Amino acid sequence: MADNVREQDVTDKVVASFETAKDDRFREVMQALVRHAHAFVRETQLTDNEWNSAIEFMTAAGHITTDTRQEFVLLSDVLGISMLTVAVNEADLGGATESTVLGPFFVQDSPEIELGGDIAQGASGEPSWVDGMVTDTDGRPVSGARIEVWEADDDGMYDVQYDDGGLAGRAHLFTDAEGRYRFWGLTPTPYPIPDDGPVGRLLDHAGRSPMRAPHLHFKVTAPGYLPLTTHIFVAGAPYLDSDSVFGVKESLIYPFEGQQADAPTPDGRRPGSTWTSAHFDIVLRRQ
Amino acid sequence: MADNVREQDVTDKVVASFETAKDDRFREVMQALVRHAHAFVRETQLTDNEWNSAIEFMTAAGHITTDTRQEFVLLSDVLGISMLTVAVNEADLGGATESTVLGPFFVQDSPEIELGGDIAQGASGEPSWVDGMVTDTDGRPVSGARIEVWEADDDGMYDVQYDDGGLAGRAHLFTDAEGRYRFWGLTPTPYPIPDDGPVGRLLDHAGRSPMRAPHLHFKVTAPGYLPLTTHIFVAGAPYLDSDSVFGVKESLIYPFEGQQADAPTPDGRRPGSTWTSAHFDIVLRRQ
Repeated sequence: MADNVREQDVTDKVVASFETAKDDRFREVMQALVRHAHAFVRETQLTDNEWNSAIEFMTAAGHITTDTRQEFVLLSDVLGISMLTVAVNEADLGGATESTVLGPFFVQDSPEIELGGDIAQGASGEPSWVDGMVTDTDGRPVSGARIEVWEADDDGMYDVQYDDGGLAGRAHLFTDAEGRYRFWGLTPTPYPIPDDGPVGRLLDHAGRSPMRAPHLHFKVTAPGYLPLTTHIFVAGAPYLDSDSVFGVKESLIYPFEGQQADAPTPDGRRPGSTWTSAHFDIVLRRQ
Repeated sequence: MADNVREQDVTDKVVASFETAKDDRFREVMQALVRHAHAFVRETQLTDNEWNSAIEFMTAAGHITTDTRQEFVLLSDVLGISMLTVAVNEADLGGATESTVLGPFFVQDSPEIELGGDIAQGASGEPSWVDGMVTDTDGRPVSGARIEVWEADDDGMYDVQYDDGGLAGRAHLFTDAEGRYRFWGLTPTPYPIPDDGPVGRLLDHAGRSPMRAPHLHFKVTAPGYLPLTTHIFVAGAPYLDSDSVFGVKESLIYPFEGQQADAPTPDGRRPGSTWTSAHFDIVLRRQ
């Protein structure tokens, strides 16, 4: 029997083994997974040693993963799988705000702040005033939309990476009757994704940088609308062309305007340092 | 920009990011991995919830994996990836013995036994006399070949699954000057792969059985020869057509001849029960 027949025989048997699946979608996804995974093995003629390396890689990724460190999300991110999943679920935007990756640092149960409140909660960095409006694709304001925002401090660390386990640099707030929101955050700075584990070693071996373009995370939900998970990126910042997770989209790059320390702030706060301001209007799709 | 263009753009960027890889083979394998993984996501239009389920699955697989429980090997096995990797590395057998999956239960440092010794070491089951000869593809005996054998007991458990951590049902021995080997083992019985973890839940959702066809594992090494990892399967046993890891090959099915308790044994041992005998000649390829 020719080699390629023997190999196809294995694939056919495995695909057929999922015919008994309990739901149609599970069958469809698993059979596609088998076909594509097998095509990869056949194309690369994967060796035993390479297969062993893959098993060791996945094991190390599993063992470094905790409630606050998600190596499999990082792996999906650096292979562009997260961003592609975003892309395939984003047909028919109709003028709505584009999505990007969730990343591994979202946590449920962030503190709620008032409009105009400060998400820093002790995270260090240059203050940044961020405001905007949430509307539907017809331009009608969406009041009471829940906006989750989170970001790294100016050491490039998220709160969940702190030793003390406290929450900082994250909060949620709700739009007012006119769909408006506003808060104090921090001017985003570049930072590396956690690169002291197997994904970091993969990037190093690939000659790739672990750096992410500076960004501020948003997750926006409102009854009757599709949830939006996105970032805004800082115009002119480094790594916009080489973001390690392929998350940058042109439409998500916004100016963070530099302000002198003594420039009047929108709410009269005296930041005591230079600060920046950004304006980000958000458009949601109806469900 | 049309959706398929946006999606291809992500894939192209990720493939390009591996151009800087430090060795050619790593670049080739990673770029192929990205192309096939992305093709899977595009074909299935994988949803956010499905992506989340995959992340949770891999996390659970990582967390159940220990030195003696390898969920990623089980996953590779039940998706036929292990068996396909065997197949793509087995071109030009030239009459040599066929390979099959290693499985998750091989351990280094098994006890050495004399020719004719007993690998059971306390594992329960019907005794089985196994003998044969190791030759090269020209029929010349290979003396001093190291033969590792391991198997489950009649409860379907490997020693590493016992609570006491002792070694049983495994050993290694060396062929004599004529390339011959012989040992007492146990008649293989069917058993389920460990199905109390995420891979077991996957099989259940797929309506698939976790059962393996009864088999005895061999790993044979000798200087100057390619290593051989294989099993022998019991002719007429259940699950030969539905082995959960797709490991069965026709050429590896051997009769285990049933013997009365009082039938004379090759070495005069009195097993005190029915026993079986199997003959397995092994052919190695030169390196």
